Amino acid sequence: MASGAGRRRRTQIHYVPGDVPEVVVQRLPLYVRVLADFEEQDMQVVSSEKLGTRLNMTPAQIRKDLSYFGRFGKQGRGYNVNNLVSTLRNILGLDISWNAAVLGMGRLGRAVVAYPGFEPEGFRVVAAFDNDERLTGSEVGGLRVQAMEEIPSTVKSRNIKIGIVAVPADSAQSVIDALVKAGVRSVLNYAPLSPKVPSSVKVRSVDPVLALQSMTYYLKNPADVH
Amino acid sequence: MASGAGRRRRTQIHYVPGDVPEVVVQRLPLYVRVLADFEEQDMQVVSSEKLGTRLNMTPAQIRKDLSYFGRFGKQGRGYNVNNLVSTLRNILGLDISWNAAVLGMGRLGRAVVAYPGFEPEGFRVVAAFDNDERLTGSEVGGLRVQAMEEIPSTVKSRNIKIGIVAVPADSAQSVIDALVKAGVRSVLNYAPLSPKVPSSVKVRSVDPVLALQSMTYYLKNPADVH
Repeated sequence: MASGAGRRRRTQIHYVPGDVPEVVVQRLPLYVRVLADFEEQDMQVVSSEKLGTRLNMTPAQIRKDLSYFGRFGKQGRGYNVNNLVSTLRNILGLDISWNAAVLGMGRLGRAVVAYPGFEPEGFRVVAAFDNDERLTGSEVGGLRVQAMEEIPSTVKSRNIKIGIVAVPADSAQSVIDALVKAGVRSVLNYAPLSPKVPSSVKVRSVDPVLALQSMTYYLKNPADVH
Repeated sequence: MASGAGRRRRTQIHYVPGDVPEVVVQRLPLYVRVLADFEEQDMQVVSSEKLGTRLNMTPAQIRKDLSYFGRFGKQGRGYNVNNLVSTLRNILGLDISWNAAVLGMGRLGRAVVAYPGFEPEGFRVVAAFDNDERLTGSEVGGLRVQAMEEIPSTVKSRNIKIGIVAVPADSAQSVIDALVKAGVRSVLNYAPLSPKVPSSVKVRSVDPVLALQSMTYYLKNPADVH
């Protein structure tokens, strides 16, 4: 029956990338994670209600988010889990592999190079950079640490699409400028500043204040006090 | 008229902290940021539609999130901006000051200590720790670097409620264990691992994969191609 539902259901993917709000794009990976869990539990069909319960969002919000990408499933029948997760992976570009460079080989940069969570998700760290002459030429996680001057040639030769910036705050902007100049359009920024980039470049910064602000709720409202 | 609306409107705050879903709590700081912007523009009243447009959420989702905390404003009249932002700040504990310790005085830890964004938001870094003997006793950002063994006594004497963990992945769990044992219940974790903590402790980890996954969308769907 479930596979019958799968046959009957046809997804009509149609979207204009620029029309999809950034917050919707940022929610899609969460959907993929939850759907991948459901898939592992051999769930075939899921309702927007059930997805909403899991993500603590209204079903209407979920249907609205997904509606940007066309029609998934039939009214009142729920979504085919396999179909939805594979379509979202495809839309997000998670079904292909991306090469990344890590900039800054301090403690954090080394930890990022060694992070075991990237490879299974299709992110390959293929280059490491630092501007400290005592580090360049040495090896970190199987990569030869290169000087920052080599960014342009290496980005090109290694097809690097993502820059992971783990340098100190005072040199982050210049490193990001070099990445952008070399053609990198996705930057994951660990440095505590808001870098300036052209609109064609996406930056995700670690925002420590926002994270702290959602924890103080629990300090002020301890769960064990009623 | 706007001040009249302010007088007529009475907020009845009533909530059971444990009943509020964590994702809702995590969205509240975003509401505060947007409302603070509106407040600066001298806006007096804002609708859930306008908030929704700004945050790219449905008005229903916003009304539902806020309904956990009682009644804000009157049906069809919108929210009083000053009232809502100050109430949310109070609920989130953003109207008081919190003491934090930074663990790990590598590049990242030093950058965190020097980060200018904490103090204006009420977060005070009052202690710095490292287990490297070459660093303990030295000064970073006006703080004397202490050995990790001093965590319990310093957490108590300095009333530290938040631990910011910037140590390498392989020592993060033991540092977090020490913080928890000392009574810290909020941890901001920069190390790329998922630490194990009791349910009474909140951890916000930097999740680099989730951040990367919402950027690959733009690599796969460049805005300049239609």
